[in-house]
Amino acid sequence: MPHTAEPPLTTIPADLTSLADYERRAVAHMPEATWRHIASGAGQECTLRQNRLAFERLLLEPRALACLQGATTHTTLLGQRHAAPVLLAPVAYHRLVHPGGECETARAAAAMQTGMVVSTLASQTLEDIARSARAAAAELRHDQAPLWFQLYLQPKRSHSLELVRRAEAAGYQALVVTIDATVKRARFALPPGVEAVNIQSFPSLAQRPQGLAGPILFGTPLVESAPTWEDIAWLRQQCTLPLIVKGVVSPRDAMRAVELGADALIVSNHGGRVLDGLPAAIDILPRVAETVAGRVPLLLDGGIRSGTDIVKALALGASAVLVGRPQLHALAVAGLLGVAHMLHLLRAELELAMAQLGCTRIAVIDRSVLWPPE
Amino acid sequence: MPHTAEPPLTTIPADLTSLADYERRAVAHMPEATWRHIASGAGQECTLRQNRLAFERLLLEPRALACLQGATTHTTLLGQRHAAPVLLAPVAYHRLVHPGGECETARAAAAMQTGMVVSTLASQTLEDIARSARAAAAELRHDQAPLWFQLYLQPKRSHSLELVRRAEAAGYQALVVTIDATVKRARFALPPGVEAVNIQSFPSLAQRPQGLAGPILFGTPLVESAPTWEDIAWLRQQCTLPLIVKGVVSPRDAMRAVELGADALIVSNHGGRVLDGLPAAIDILPRVAETVAGRVPLLLDGGIRSGTDIVKALALGASAVLVGRPQLHALAVAGLLGVAHMLHLLRAELELAMAQLGCTRIAVIDRSVLWPPE
Amino acid sequence: MPHTAEPPLTTIPADLTSLADYERRAVAHMPEATWRHIASGAGQECTLRQNRLAFERLLLEPRALACLQGATTHTTLLGQRHAAPVLLAPVAYHRLVHPGGECETARAAAAMQTGMVVSTLASQTLEDIARSARAAAAELRHDQAPLWFQLYLQPKRSHSLELVRRAEAAGYQALVVTIDATVKRARFALPPGVEAVNIQSFPSLAQRPQGLAGPILFGTPLVESAPTWEDIAWLRQQCTLPLIVKGVVSPRDAMRAVELGADALIVSNHGGRVLDGLPAAIDILPRVAETVAGRVPLLLDGGIRSGTDIVKALALGASAVLVGRPQLHALAVAGLLGVAHMLHLLRAELELAMAQLGCTRIAVIDRSVLWPPE
Amino acid sequence: MPHTAEPPLTTIPADLTSLADYERRAVAHMPEATWRHIASGAGQECTLRQNRLAFERLLLEPRALACLQGATTHTTLLGQRHAAPVLLAPVAYHRLVHPGGECETARAAAAMQTGMVVSTLASQTLEDIARSARAAAAELRHDQAPLWFQLYLQPKRSHSLELVRRAEAAGYQALVVTIDATVKRARFALPPGVEAVNIQSFPSLAQRPQGLAGPILFGTPLVESAPTWEDIAWLRQQCTLPLIVKGVVSPRDAMRAVELGADALIVSNHGGRVLDGLPAAIDILPRVAETVAGRVPLLLDGGIRSGTDIVKALALGASAVLVGRPQLHALAVAGLLGVAHMLHLLRAELELAMAQLGCTRIAVIDRSVLWPPE
Repeated sequence: MPHTAEPPLTTIPADLTSLADYERRAVAHMPEATWRHIASGAGQECTLRQNRLAFERLLLEPRALACLQGATTHTTLLGQRHAAPVLLAPVAYHRLVHPGGECETARAAAAMQTGMVVSTLASQTLEDIARSARAAAAELRHDQAPLWFQLYLQPKRSHSLELVRRAEAAGYQALVVTIDATVKRARFALPPGVEAVNIQSFPSLAQRPQGLAGPILFGTPLVESAPTWEDIAWLRQQCTLPLIVKGVVSPRDAMRAVELGADALIVSNHGGRVLDGLPAAIDILPRVAETVAGRVPLLLDGGIRSGTDIVKALALGASAVLVGRPQLHALAVAGLLGVAHMLHLLRAELELAMAQLGCTRIAVIDRSVLWPPE
Repeated sequence: MPHTAEPPLTTIPADLTSLADYERRAVAHMPEATWRHIASGAGQECTLRQNRLAFERLLLEPRALACLQGATTHTTLLGQRHAAPVLLAPVAYHRLVHPGGECETARAAAAMQTGMVVSTLASQTLEDIARSARAAAAELRHDQAPLWFQLYLQPKRSHSLELVRRAEAAGYQALVVTIDATVKRARFALPPGVEAVNIQSFPSLAQRPQGLAGPILFGTPLVESAPTWEDIAWLRQQCTLPLIVKGVVSPRDAMRAVELGADALIVSNHGGRVLDGLPAAIDILPRVAETVAGRVPLLLDGGIRSGTDIVKALALGASAVLVGRPQLHALAVAGLLGVAHMLHLLRAELELAMAQLGCTRIAVIDRSVLWPPE
Repeated sequence: MPHTAEPPLTTIPADLTSLADYERRAVAHMPEATWRHIASGAGQECTLRQNRLAFERLLLEPRALACLQGATTHTTLLGQRHAAPVLLAPVAYHRLVHPGGECETARAAAAMQTGMVVSTLASQTLEDIARSARAAAAELRHDQAPLWFQLYLQPKRSHSLELVRRAEAAGYQALVVTIDATVKRARFALPPGVEAVNIQSFPSLAQRPQGLAGPILFGTPLVESAPTWEDIAWLRQQCTLPLIVKGVVSPRDAMRAVELGADALIVSNHGGRVLDGLPAAIDILPRVAETVAGRVPLLLDGGIRSGTDIVKALALGASAVLVGRPQLHALAVAGLLGVAHMLHLLRAELELAMAQLGCTRIAVIDRSVLWPPE
Repeated sequence: MPHTAEPPLTTIPADLTSLADYERRAVAHMPEATWRHIASGAGQECTLRQNRLAFERLLLEPRALACLQGATTHTTLLGQRHAAPVLLAPVAYHRLVHPGGECETARAAAAMQTGMVVSTLASQTLEDIARSARAAAAELRHDQAPLWFQLYLQPKRSHSLELVRRAEAAGYQALVVTIDATVKRARFALPPGVEAVNIQSFPSLAQRPQGLAGPILFGTPLVESAPTWEDIAWLRQQCTLPLIVKGVVSPRDAMRAVELGADALIVSNHGGRVLDGLPAAIDILPRVAETVAGRVPLLLDGGIRSGTDIVKALALGASAVLVGRPQLHALAVAGLLGVAHMLHLLRAELELAMAQLGCTRIAVIDRSVLWPPE
């Protein structure tokens, strides 16, 4: 059946009161194939579903009638100030859902003083995105919120280094290197005008044709030259910015990243998009937290859809969280306005949850907010 | 699609034989937005669902062929006599579903000799409601059933005190102070003619407009002047009536309330309407009961829809239960007649359950009625 | 919507290959209200559902390649020979679904050499039913299968005794006294021509009208003269037949029945029709078996729909099982032919299961057929 | 409703990217009764469902950034080389879904260098199938992949022996004897032209008509002459090929098979088709592996639908896996091309999973790839 995407709204309807509302609404604002690409997960989507269900299994123990004077959601991470412990996760190709692309998203993030992680697979140049963020902050007389760059290690180190240097030059304040999707197969055909502009000058890996019954990925350059921990060590040497390792599931990998000098880790199963059968992101967190034991801060990516989800992640050891798909939902529904409103909803829900839990500071949120009382 | 609410029925159809039947039927007797407002819970409604599912997980061990002579559901609570351990929970704005409002409900409660807790957010004056209850009891030559007043602490103590004094003067027999919804955001627009008449003379808290990216609730008068435990201590001093604290989830809060002089506690998660992620009401009860250890009686609010639910709550430590949404379902379906019939169904089911369990007195219902035998 | 019941089939269609098929088919062969009455359970039907789900949770460990020569399903219970450890449970009013009523069912049971328990609430006289069973067995030159009479204790002992004496005189070989539905409220209106003919001469208990808000069942003759264990002791004295107590859930009640002289017990929650919240029948069985410790044989009633269900019940301590609703499904679909075929399916499934489990005798089926191996 | 099966496709549509896609598509490419026959399981299909759900409950712990150079899926089993640890399970009557039948499937397997187990109930002669496989391998200049013959023991040993000798003569490299479906009842009527051509010359067991109420299978030749462990011992003596025992659930039976000289075991519940209530295949595996303790290799059959399923089976002790129904799905959808593509998808998914898990050899896959870390 044909599907004509509706244009972005220019005002926020009264019935958009949660991130789930945005998700339901977004389906009308993008081509069906794009919707399926964004919504889907790997395999039978067990990990995708568990990313949400695992949050629903966690329960909260409120603290009534606490004094809430001076309560705040501000927090500091790697020396950088965040209005709330929430960042926009790196998400590829924002222009799939809105012509304004990542620049539009960056303006919304700046307006809400929310940190943003720009993807290697952005559909606009990392320099343009940074400029948009700075301009929006300046216009609103805001302090600029943290802007980080996410790096997919390129087959050639020189290409990786080129991206790092551009990010440093453009004023990005941290480098987020993704370790969990180094070998994968793309299936979604990008529509005309949507491209990975930041890496389009690099030659793509030729897929060496192999025998009919032979290996499919094994033995190809994609696999043979896949990045390893040595590349992380090299990157740590090269990069002047704080280095954040994204895609941590295994506590073994967490320790290895810390030993190689990572400044922070992002616990993530890539939104259930890479390998079906991985545990839910929030279920990974406590095990990684136990292993890392406070050596570096942890961030949580995967399944965050509400203020109580944020609180649960903080309770289990995260210093902050990232939201992925909801950016695209909100961007598709109402562009800058949508993304800003989505972030507003999250923050309002976080404040309400903190009020109910009697927490006036991010730092005091720990396992004591979880039910049953231990 | 347009939705025209059907008027209340004047006789009870034969197929209304359970509270679930009333719920299914009620949707036709109110505007759709009202239905959604009443039926909904916070967030993704996990707590709302668990309030029911947790009851379904509890199993009963019957006792066959017990002698049932002289069996009764009567019970005494805070020195007040109840025909059965069931009260009508405080529920806002009865006029949303029936023009007779709380007065209609109060007449039904009086007819069924059932205790009622009138909400601060009643759509009729607390004096009128008390008069209706008294008149109905007198007409039927019934003893008057307990009538309690539920208090939302007001930003100004003088306003809270005014409500307390009015309740005392109007003959209410206990004060129920709610501690679990002190900070929340209203979203439902009341239709014309439905108002919180008991507090409409008090100025509402001006929402100080804050910066676009700044805090949303934090720093506003709503949060800065939110009530604290000190207000409970003050209220205890001011109030001559038994003081009941409603909205207890945390055993810590339960103990604090007892130490401040509460005469009873109502275990409740506000029907899943305040913070999604709270445990099911019936799952909270045994932990609070263990902590309180009999110092004061406990009541259970949340998810009660049948006689076996009542028995399960009593088995786990409650002295009585409250029913919330079913009041509005029954009031919408058939006014006074509906509420009285709904209470009749509950009581008949309670008697049947007690008969199957071999219990002839409310006081003997304890964990021995639960399966598996310990 | 109007519903015209289809007449019973006169041949068995090829797609009726399980008891579940009969259940699906039966809905077309009876009025909708009758279907709902038969299918329904008490309350929210949790117990009804669990009666099935609990079987599905039990797993089997097969034994391959066993020698199956001379395998048989025959078993002996209370000195009576059964072709298989399956009986027809007492079910009220067979004429609700077929004009041939209990006599039709009895002929099918006789044809399949299957024991039958005739209900006090049969819609034909117990004498006629016994005669039909005997005539069918004689015509087929079968040994007569066990025929038992189920007794609901009547408000007057003389009436109970009259039923016992009639059953003895009519050749019934055991008395099954039901203890779990002594206090209940009937809601289903019997259609014309369907009556409890065996007790219609006894005066029914007048429901004393009580005050509007007063007790509903408590204090009425129904409750005040409800049978007690003393009546079981009395019955044991009066009755010359083996006495079987049906409706055992609590191990306490099981022991009491044994101490009062019961010859066997039927573990049952009355098909989930009496009190919602009771444990699944098959989950009750092992606890009762542990308590009774072999003093008397146990039968299991509730949720049996296949040969593997029978095996699971035997593994957990039952000597035989009873099937309830499937009788009515099969009787409605195809009368005598349907009931006989339904019993044929059950027996074929039992044989297949025994073959897979390497069991050639009913008596060797024990917990070793359950997975995981202990 | 009439159902006209679509002919096999001649190219693979872009939206067929998983075995689940093939399953969904296959329904259009075969008569409805055939679809139901293939898709269905025994009883209420609990075992069928659990075969899948049990895989979904198992979680993986990835290992990021491992060096993947030289990675391969090759493995050796019973001295035979497999391109990947995946074989086509024995499945009856391929001509039900494609006129090319088992020969078509065998050509696809040869093209993908995938082992195939030909069923006793093949719809083409075992010699023709072997010839097709050899010819296809020769044409592609492939080494021939392992070709095994599955044996249902026949009522007469001479008939079994005839099949064994034919399989040996035709170049089959192992004999797979099935022990879990020796007693069953066929219900599906084969369409014209689809026959068990390899055994059609053997007389079928006459079903001795028994009394109406007597035993159904017990006492018939089918049961009385069902194969036993003695037949396995005999077969071990007669057969020069490696002997693999298929249908192992019980650890007791596993040990017995090993003691009688089985060279390998296939853990299987026959795809949930024989006895409902058996545990999921993947749940059986670790218990059998523990008992067998490495004496012989184990294969896993049942529920494999993706590369992560293969990895999970290997992690729990399997040396290789078999896929059953997906062969028929793919054969129906696109004949040789479909089966080859289905195998290609499985292998690509296996390589991706191994890459994510940091495994470059089949032999290193063990419990350390499972979450949570022990």
